[in-house]
Amino acid sequence: MRAEPQSFDRVLSSMCTEPHPAAREAAERFLATNPGDPGTYPTVADLEDDAVSLLGEIAGLDEPAGYVASGGTEANVQAVRIARERAENGRPTVVLPESAHFSFQKAADLLDVELRVVPTTDDGRADLEAVRACVNEDTAAVVGVAGSTEYGRVDPIPELGEIADSVDALLHVDAAWGGFVLPFTDYEWHFGHAPVDTMAIDPHKMGQAAVPAGGLLARSSDLLDELAVETPYLESTSQATLTGTRSGAGVASAVAAIEELWPDGYRDQYVRSQNNAKWLASKLESRGYDVVEPALPLVAASVPTPLFEALRDEGWRLSRTGDGELRVVCMPHVTRDGLESFVADVDRLETRVGLEVAGASE
Amino acid sequence: MRAEPQSFDRVLSSMCTEPHPAAREAAERFLATNPGDPGTYPTVADLEDDAVSLLGEIAGLDEPAGYVASGGTEANVQAVRIARERAENGRPTVVLPESAHFSFQKAADLLDVELRVVPTTDDGRADLEAVRACVNEDTAAVVGVAGSTEYGRVDPIPELGEIADSVDALLHVDAAWGGFVLPFTDYEWHFGHAPVDTMAIDPHKMGQAAVPAGGLLARSSDLLDELAVETPYLESTSQATLTGTRSGAGVASAVAAIEELWPDGYRDQYVRSQNNAKWLASKLESRGYDVVEPALPLVAASVPTPLFEALRDEGWRLSRTGDGELRVVCMPHVTRDGLESFVADVDRLETRVGLEVAGASE
Repeated sequence: MRAEPQSFDRVLSSMCTEPHPAAREAAERFLATNPGDPGTYPTVADLEDDAVSLLGEIAGLDEPAGYVASGGTEANVQAVRIARERAENGRPTVVLPESAHFSFQKAADLLDVELRVVPTTDDGRADLEAVRACVNEDTAAVVGVAGSTEYGRVDPIPELGEIADSVDALLHVDAAWGGFVLPFTDYEWHFGHAPVDTMAIDPHKMGQAAVPAGGLLARSSDLLDELAVETPYLESTSQATLTGTRSGAGVASAVAAIEELWPDGYRDQYVRSQNNAKWLASKLESRGYDVVEPALPLVAASVPTPLFEALRDEGWRLSRTGDGELRVVCMPHVTRDGLESFVADVDRLETRVGLEVAGASE
Repeated sequence: MRAEPQSFDRVLSSMCTEPHPAAREAAERFLATNPGDPGTYPTVADLEDDAVSLLGEIAGLDEPAGYVASGGTEANVQAVRIARERAENGRPTVVLPESAHFSFQKAADLLDVELRVVPTTDDGRADLEAVRACVNEDTAAVVGVAGSTEYGRVDPIPELGEIADSVDALLHVDAAWGGFVLPFTDYEWHFGHAPVDTMAIDPHKMGQAAVPAGGLLARSSDLLDELAVETPYLESTSQATLTGTRSGAGVASAVAAIEELWPDGYRDQYVRSQNNAKWLASKLESRGYDVVEPALPLVAASVPTPLFEALRDEGWRLSRTGDGELRVVCMPHVTRDGLESFVADVDRLETRVGLEVAGASE
């Protein structure tokens, strides 16, 4: 097999990144272990307990329940599943903002739960009036996003918690991407700030662990118990995870990354990434593009499709928001040098695309 | 982080194994890639196409649809989900033998599908009369196991296919563990032998790939389409997987292992493993234990609990069947030397346990 993975130099579209060297080293050592079988692989099972404790520390939870999931999708699916299991009515619903990740659609399909999608306000955050108007006795969970996939926006989590409480619904926070940068901001987003019941928080995104290392946290173990199925022929008695065999590499790399970087390394990285995002936003704005101000290290800008395509042809890995805006995620592998080179390509290709358009219209 | 994974020397309980060196090397190179985002990571997305083609070749399917899943649980869940989506009635059921893996219980919980569990005959295979009596117009799928988790038994797949056809149900084959040894046996188990619709076949078990590398195969892409959800902000349009971000390491290592070992390397391994299983079965039988004859490289034997516990205390990683029998999976890392050392411990500890029991009863 001669194929080589491409370098990260021109990857501006991913919410994953190069693992930290300590995370890579741990992943390689634990490649052949399976935390899904703790009787056989006790060391990595112990490491998973460490990972959950560390995630709890980041997310303001003293005695966290949870596990290292395959990623944010699994954590979101499992949170919806917990809510469904606890709901007393036959057809539970989940209220969430339109900014929520598409994994909630997957959860709804899988779990046969109805989604009630409410709009966001102009600043890209859940519209609280709309949420209030939407919840009722059928509401099993309210979802808040702490770092949205498209614009990096943070919903008003404490207020969503009050609304969820008012109808006895669970509050789930999707901090899959945001969880490792939010501790260094003024946002109120975690278990210590609001009556959060469950959370997605992924080490393999801003946490710099190796894929697959997502995180599901729950305020109490009885929430997690809703997921348990019995496990014959494993020397453990039940399993709360969506998958069976799981990656020891992900677990070990999550612990290694967090022990190495929490909190100072992550703070430094947040500052670098946030400065890069602001710098890119200002550069694009000064070139006349509409830019969504980066609340977290993620920039969205309305770049015309021909320019977007031309940049892709140059090897830049780019993605778009649902509204078609260019979307750049300032992950740890995205450096100022890389962004300078990207902006230089914007300038060069803008001219070329402009000339082509002008030429075509002659 | 100073924890070290234990060696595989005394692991007799796992259905995973040390990755083949080529698989490990590929996993390490592709650690920072995500086949769940093919627009950003095109190389590993191409490798996934290769993996599916290779799995199809092993499983008798010329133009396979499918993907590299997180493992057998995901593949089984997704197969049940496909069947549920295609069912026309409101409360679809799945008919499966009691030997089926507990992941089907997970699927039933998640998907709100009812399981109809039928007994196995004395040889541990699905009782065809019971299956026939159980299927009806509500049956969305019939499950056949090709290499059961507890006893390594292979259900009569062609006959199950006929029964499934008779009620327009899908036939799903769980060959998660068996798929990489069955090609070297006389069993009829795959898409070429029977009207199989979907299959679980895991590279990270007998295929010697790194975790996580499961396999979901489907006879046609329209079956897979039942799983698709739309994916905004990825430069692909839909996603059929249960998870979102996925492990490029798993995908790359699956391709590397299969290219290296299919078919000769896997055949040699099957012969070694099967001979080891027969050897261990005969040694345990000659010591007076009831042994379930190994149809595939998996031995079950009725060993008394005190001896089982004493062996565990010696560091042997062992598991039990639901009926309490010792269960040894002869994976590639399980060598004749290792088994000789295990049998020597059986002899030594048998005496000690016997003396203790005798002493206690005095």
